[in-house]
Amino acid sequence: MSTQKRKIIAISGGVGGAKLSQGLAQIVDHKDLTIIVNTGDDSHHYGLFVSPDIDTQLYTLSGKADLGRGWGQKDETWNAMDALRELGEDIWFNIGDKDLGTNLLRTMRLAKGQRLTDITRDFAQAFGLEINVLPMCDEPVSTQLKCSDADYDFHDWFVAAQTKPVVKEVVFRGADEAVMTREVTAALADPSLAAIIVCPSNPYLSIAPILSVPGYREALRNTNAPVIGITPIISGEAIKGPTAAMMQTFGLPVTASSAAALHADIFDGYILDARDAAELDTFKATNPDLAVKLSDTLMVDLPAKQALAKAALDFAETLS
Amino acid sequence: MSTQKRKIIAISGGVGGAKLSQGLAQIVDHKDLTIIVNTGDDSHHYGLFVSPDIDTQLYTLSGKADLGRGWGQKDETWNAMDALRELGEDIWFNIGDKDLGTNLLRTMRLAKGQRLTDITRDFAQAFGLEINVLPMCDEPVSTQLKCSDADYDFHDWFVAAQTKPVVKEVVFRGADEAVMTREVTAALADPSLAAIIVCPSNPYLSIAPILSVPGYREALRNTNAPVIGITPIISGEAIKGPTAAMMQTFGLPVTASSAAALHADIFDGYILDARDAAELDTFKATNPDLAVKLSDTLMVDLPAKQALAKAALDFAETLS
Repeated sequence: MSTQKRKIIAISGGVGGAKLSQGLAQIVDHKDLTIIVNTGDDSHHYGLFVSPDIDTQLYTLSGKADLGRGWGQKDETWNAMDALRELGEDIWFNIGDKDLGTNLLRTMRLAKGQRLTDITRDFAQAFGLEINVLPMCDEPVSTQLKCSDADYDFHDWFVAAQTKPVVKEVVFRGADEAVMTREVTAALADPSLAAIIVCPSNPYLSIAPILSVPGYREALRNTNAPVIGITPIISGEAIKGPTAAMMQTFGLPVTASSAAALHADIFDGYILDARDAAELDTFKATNPDLAVKLSDTLMVDLPAKQALAKAALDFAETLS
Repeated sequence: MSTQKRKIIAISGGVGGAKLSQGLAQIVDHKDLTIIVNTGDDSHHYGLFVSPDIDTQLYTLSGKADLGRGWGQKDETWNAMDALRELGEDIWFNIGDKDLGTNLLRTMRLAKGQRLTDITRDFAQAFGLEINVLPMCDEPVSTQLKCSDADYDFHDWFVAAQTKPVVKEVVFRGADEAVMTREVTAALADPSLAAIIVCPSNPYLSIAPILSVPGYREALRNTNAPVIGITPIISGEAIKGPTAAMMQTFGLPVTASSAAALHADIFDGYILDARDAAELDTFKATNPDLAVKLSDTLMVDLPAKQALAKAALDFAETLS
């Protein structure tokens, strides 16, 4: 009796990736769905350990996310931040009051020596999720931006400096000492794994930190499951965030083709946006080893998220 | 030219003491008013360092306090605590969202090695207060209740166990290593000090921890300024809290006379509630060295707080 291949892994950053996670959650049995999430944005604010991409996934999948704002919870209040402002603090990194609860508990449990993986699993369960949300690793990995004017911690650059300083190099401090968790290793090695979907997250800031942890790149290259990438670039622009600006800085054409090429070694197939059909020949020339498919990747609403998820899984099936 | 004696010190715990602080603030120039506050209730919750009596003073004096609830800020929200509950935490110690801002910043600044005295001064200034609010010391002092069934940390006993376990002994852990701050020492030694008012706070749990710090008892005995105590007991009952129950446990009659006798060595004068005029002879027999005065000590509203503050200062003037 052959093992039915039904398990799905998504590899994701925050908002953009969570949209696709939400789409996958519509069509994949939750027990069969694993999301491996970037923790390179994790950092300390107000003495708390924040893990923005993990929380974006948890909040989005459990229906708590403020999808308009793009981070944090809906129906949120901001009284703690206002109190800090009144006390004279310069508050540029906002944490809502509900969100503080999450961050207080995570910080407390980490201080007790618990693993981020265990904490995240318990949070997911408390939010009623059966989806397996896994941090990329349990060790702290800190994304650092070496820019033309100075070096920045991730949120100093992303939030405080609004991504304006020109990035010369991205460094994932701590990645060399990080290891794939046993949960990630088991998920990637699962014989019933049908597909690995790399979400349309920022290739430099969301996908690269995951690949910087020793073992990921090899595991994704060597897995029997098809690895499907999805473009973060549509018609020469990023849906959101600094992907396009960074590609320009690094001298790349702002195209799906060059975005795919950044991590082409891990992909078996890649989805371009249907608006970029004219780019297909360029894509094949740039990424000769990758299968390619066109789809609507904009994910404007839940049906669109579900449709892209289905397109990715169907594409994977053709490659398995 | 003689120094005009105009400075006033209040020595206080939380709610009851803050009522009198508020009364004093009505009639004393704020720059001349110093409140020395119990920090024996300070402790850690959710990874934060809470200082309940300090905050009660700051919130009350700045008009932020929820006087009905008796702790925390008015117009408060509780989203962080609700979030912790949803994550499965057993929350019995509530910190409101605004209050979290205060506690986050205090915790951050303590972690940087800053003194509680400096942090409290800055908070008071940020709240627009010119009143000098001083923690009793900068070192951690932790009130421990040795009870018939077990030993309790203060909030475990006061909040979680609702003061029900019968107290055999009160211990102020850390007090031996604590020292009077230079600010407290200077305030107590100020030649323009007109009076020291010991607020009607719990003598075991609010006043005793302050006196447990080496130097306070001697300073209060030796100061030239009159030290005025105010009864926490009216007609055989405490206004609030476990004072009466503790006096019974320790075998004392629940009277102003025996409350005064607990710390009689520091007082020059003591104010009994006007309702207890019949107790005057007993009081004089029990506390022969103390001057005594009757006043309305219930402080039901701001005019009553102000009247008691004025009565205490007038009494002090007769004793100087």
